[in-house]
Amino acid sequence: MLYIGLDVGGMSVKAGVVDGDGNILIKSSCPTGVERGHEATIRDMAALALRIVKESGRAMDEIASVGVGIPGVEDPSTGLVPFCNNLHWHDVPLSGMLSGLLGKPVYVDNDATVAGLAESVAGVSKGYNSSVFITLGTGVGGGIVLNRRAFTGAHGVGSEIGHMVIVAGGEPCNCGHRGCWEKYASATAIIRMGGELLAKNPGCALSMAVAGDPSRVTAKLVLDLAKEGDPGCAEVFREYVYYLCVGLASLVNILDPEVFVLGGGVSYAGEFLLNAVREELPKHIFYTSMPYARVELATLGNDAGVIGAAMLGRRA
Amino acid sequence: MLYIGLDVGGMSVKAGVVDGDGNILIKSSCPTGVERGHEATIRDMAALALRIVKESGRAMDEIASVGVGIPGVEDPSTGLVPFCNNLHWHDVPLSGMLSGLLGKPVYVDNDATVAGLAESVAGVSKGYNSSVFITLGTGVGGGIVLNRRAFTGAHGVGSEIGHMVIVAGGEPCNCGHRGCWEKYASATAIIRMGGELLAKNPGCALSMAVAGDPSRVTAKLVLDLAKEGDPGCAEVFREYVYYLCVGLASLVNILDPEVFVLGGGVSYAGEFLLNAVREELPKHIFYTSMPYARVELATLGNDAGVIGAAMLGRRA
Repeated sequence: MLYIGLDVGGMSVKAGVVDGDGNILIKSSCPTGVERGHEATIRDMAALALRIVKESGRAMDEIASVGVGIPGVEDPSTGLVPFCNNLHWHDVPLSGMLSGLLGKPVYVDNDATVAGLAESVAGVSKGYNSSVFITLGTGVGGGIVLNRRAFTGAHGVGSEIGHMVIVAGGEPCNCGHRGCWEKYASATAIIRMGGELLAKNPGCALSMAVAGDPSRVTAKLVLDLAKEGDPGCAEVFREYVYYLCVGLASLVNILDPEVFVLGGGVSYAGEFLLNAVREELPKHIFYTSMPYARVELATLGNDAGVIGAAMLGRRA
Repeated sequence: MLYIGLDVGGMSVKAGVVDGDGNILIKSSCPTGVERGHEATIRDMAALALRIVKESGRAMDEIASVGVGIPGVEDPSTGLVPFCNNLHWHDVPLSGMLSGLLGKPVYVDNDATVAGLAESVAGVSKGYNSSVFITLGTGVGGGIVLNRRAFTGAHGVGSEIGHMVIVAGGEPCNCGHRGCWEKYASATAIIRMGGELLAKNPGCALSMAVAGDPSRVTAKLVLDLAKEGDPGCAEVFREYVYYLCVGLASLVNILDPEVFVLGGGVSYAGEFLLNAVREELPKHIFYTSMPYARVELATLGNDAGVIGAAMLGRRA
């Protein structure tokens, strides 16, 4: 059987026809057009799905199910998406509408959750029963896979690992609470720490690179300068990796997965990040004499959303 | 079928013959005798198991399996218990030895994990698919139940929720790290906070109750005074409940269980604790418009260890 995967972002909807091994047979995209409201977007999603199935030369009869990754969650008790910040959605009956338009079972889950599932079907965590995928981007998202299936808990509100508190009373977070992991382990955190470096150290390499303008600091710039050995940015990076590993160790103590998969913008720092995390994490581990999760980099990049969404309906 | 449950503590080994619904048919105990070494203890455990089966009037043929709860974990990759602080055990082949002596399959897991399983089979979380049991004692232990089975992760090092870090760089913990949840949410944390109150406020009610001697502060005393409305102890209690809920909310964001079960010494504060936690927890929740875990008090008390250990081998 084949599966349709839809990856809904604020700017575009990506779609793909995917086989049971997570291979994309065909993919395409359309603008999300958020300003038109959710009904128009969902109709376009259905039209896009039908079009790519046709273009792939396959029939809808061959499609077992449709999966959708969204920047939010669906409430399984109501079947509604209570809200999606980027999409301005409130109480949207996404799966019901899409199922009506396509005549297929529709599964909806968080975009980080589906990306984690994708890596476990066709990416770096393939072959493992359990993994935790961590997107290190504007925020920190999580995709927990247990027994080879996406895990989001009893009410669909689990897997939000970026809002695990690692500094009670710490940095204020957009979620309204304080000290969430994403305030210390996201790309945004690197930018904040870079800005603090700039303020303390007006003559530093980072300051020169942005001509003293803190609004021009990017995570990539800080990471590149750290890689080149600039002491200030290296210290920011060291602090970043420390907080990243505080959270990873807590996840070992709770979930004890076989593997952590690092994805998102910060993960493009590649081996530089991976080696630092692999060196730091053991310093935070509780049962030092026993095996614990290995750490890897995500491999599927932008295709993870489509592949993982498609795999939501696969019965492994 | 019937099951034998063994609950190994530093002072005594408790044993019970348990039916498939978690009812204890007969129970007994013997001294652990830690100083004699692990072989003598394990031989006594086997003898105790055989004795209670005989005294129950049942035959060993009716026993499906034997479960053991220990203050530590078994490494599933080696079948050894790497260490148990209270028992002075190092690399002990517990399940192998006991299985040899009793001729039955033997399952070993952490004492908090089996207590959580017991509550989900025969206690307050019965009927739920997922729960997190939290022992609020000298430390903070955790028993995660997913799909009605004890969950300890891929390498057996999960479910150690007391060592989730909630204050990076915070209070030093016995585990060698800093800021672990158990440094803020255990009975020991209440004693520490009570001692701090005493030092700041020599004329307070707590100080009078212990005649100014910080070594006489107990968690029960602080909680009792808080219940009576003493402002200083009420503030300690408020702070304690805050940190307890910081950790519970993180567990919602990760595991999203159906129910939290509070056990251990602090939970004997009963409704006073339960009501405070139920009032505080919503202030820390991420998806406020969606359902999340309810909070309950454990009901099985000291029997939880024997029942849960017995249930490790039950195929639900």
